[in-house]
Amino acid sequence: MLEIVVIGTGNVSYHLCKAILETENLKLIEVFGRKKNSPKYLIDSISYCTNLKKIKKADLYILCVSDNAISKISDQLNINHDSIIVHTSGSTNMNCLSKHKNYGVIYPLQTLSENKKIMFSNIPLIIEANSKIVLDKLRTICSILSKKVIDSNSDQRTLIHISAVFANNFSNYMNIIAKEILNSNNIDSNLLNPLINETANKLNHLSPLNAQTGPAIRKDQITIQKHLNLLKKTKYFEIYDKLTKEIIKLKNEL
Amino acid sequence: MLEIVVIGTGNVSYHLCKAILETENLKLIEVFGRKKNSPKYLIDSISYCTNLKKIKKADLYILCVSDNAISKISDQLNINHDSIIVHTSGSTNMNCLSKHKNYGVIYPLQTLSENKKIMFSNIPLIIEANSKIVLDKLRTICSILSKKVIDSNSDQRTLIHISAVFANNFSNYMNIIAKEILNSNNIDSNLLNPLINETANKLNHLSPLNAQTGPAIRKDQITIQKHLNLLKKTKYFEIYDKLTKEIIKLKNEL
Repeated sequence: MLEIVVIGTGNVSYHLCKAILETENLKLIEVFGRKKNSPKYLIDSISYCTNLKKIKKADLYILCVSDNAISKISDQLNINHDSIIVHTSGSTNMNCLSKHKNYGVIYPLQTLSENKKIMFSNIPLIIEANSKIVLDKLRTICSILSKKVIDSNSDQRTLIHISAVFANNFSNYMNIIAKEILNSNNIDSNLLNPLINETANKLNHLSPLNAQTGPAIRKDQITIQKHLNLLKKTKYFEIYDKLTKEIIKLKNEL
Repeated sequence: MLEIVVIGTGNVSYHLCKAILETENLKLIEVFGRKKNSPKYLIDSISYCTNLKKIKKADLYILCVSDNAISKISDQLNINHDSIIVHTSGSTNMNCLSKHKNYGVIYPLQTLSENKKIMFSNIPLIIEANSKIVLDKLRTICSILSKKVIDSNSDQRTLIHISAVFANNFSNYMNIIAKEILNSNNIDSNLLNPLINETANKLNHLSPLNAQTGPAIRKDQITIQKHLNLLKKTKYFEIYDKLTKEIIKLKNEL
């Protein structure tokens, strides 16, 4: 059975380790971390290592570390000639692993937080490799973990990462603002939950362009001005103003 | 049984009419619209009227028209002394209906598009009225249509509307941008659907602040600069830059 070492103990590592442990065809043999103690979610039978030089031999090493640590850790790793090493970063070029013979990328396109369960098999895995043989191996491995495995080069992957920043990070920030506006006015912000769910659910049926509603796409200047007046003294004025203008521009271009 | 006339034939009218037709305790007796023909979704037994002066007598008139048409239509309506008239707008003051004796607001806090089904009973209905008697009546009627009915004054309702603009309109615009970035680079934009669904789903378990991930909240300047460089010639540069700076500010304030 294919043996895997996961390097790092953050959110990506957490969900990936759990997914590997749940499959029957892949074997997690070790996790490397800087913390003294093994993460709680690891079962006792999995070895935990804090010294890169003593890391176990494996078929696949998966780096789940922050982008700026990838090269440093890769350079310190002495792995078997036949082993594969991959990182899991959206915007880091594959070539930062080129010290090794077989290398690539497995980028999970999802927002992962440790205290939120997720069905790993639904996460698109974006893969890249330095040879066809390695790519085929990664595709086989990833197909065990996920229903959706996609090839992409490093440039495309960065574009996918940027689009994910908009679809998740910035979208979620809009929800932070929305809830903050209600909380600071003593209005129950859970009121927004059905709207937030429907915003996502709609896109399983409509394109985001067809799903767009509200004052900006209607070019309803009376409401827009009313909202801007109320936001005038807040840090959200500029964001409201900018995004509204962009949506109106978009409408004018249709 | 309480008899209702709905005025307007847009998205709100469509979903509201459907919801009323599905309940047993409310009776939709007429819909008013400017278009010559009755909307397709109305069953034959519901009268359709295109002349405000000939509108039927009813217990409740619900205005589902654009904000700037509310006053004009209200002024032209001659309704029974005992009837109630309400509008459904998020940011229009209730008082624009004050020509009448009994008036109020039923604001459905949801994004409604005609070609997207929705469970109306999950939509929070924000209500307001010019007297306690009318408020009680509206609460009774709305409780038949929705599991969540909330009192609010016009100022609070505008704040709720502004927060909905962020949580839905601006969030969805982030999805428009995300999908556009992929489409214009010939990458299948459906790849983002699991991420978009999880962005919303997470908030049923975590606060948006705890759900925030990505380069900005990590203050990962290397990735941020990489993304900004790639976006430099696009209309999305400024939005990425502004929102990233705001998220970093937020992180610094924590």
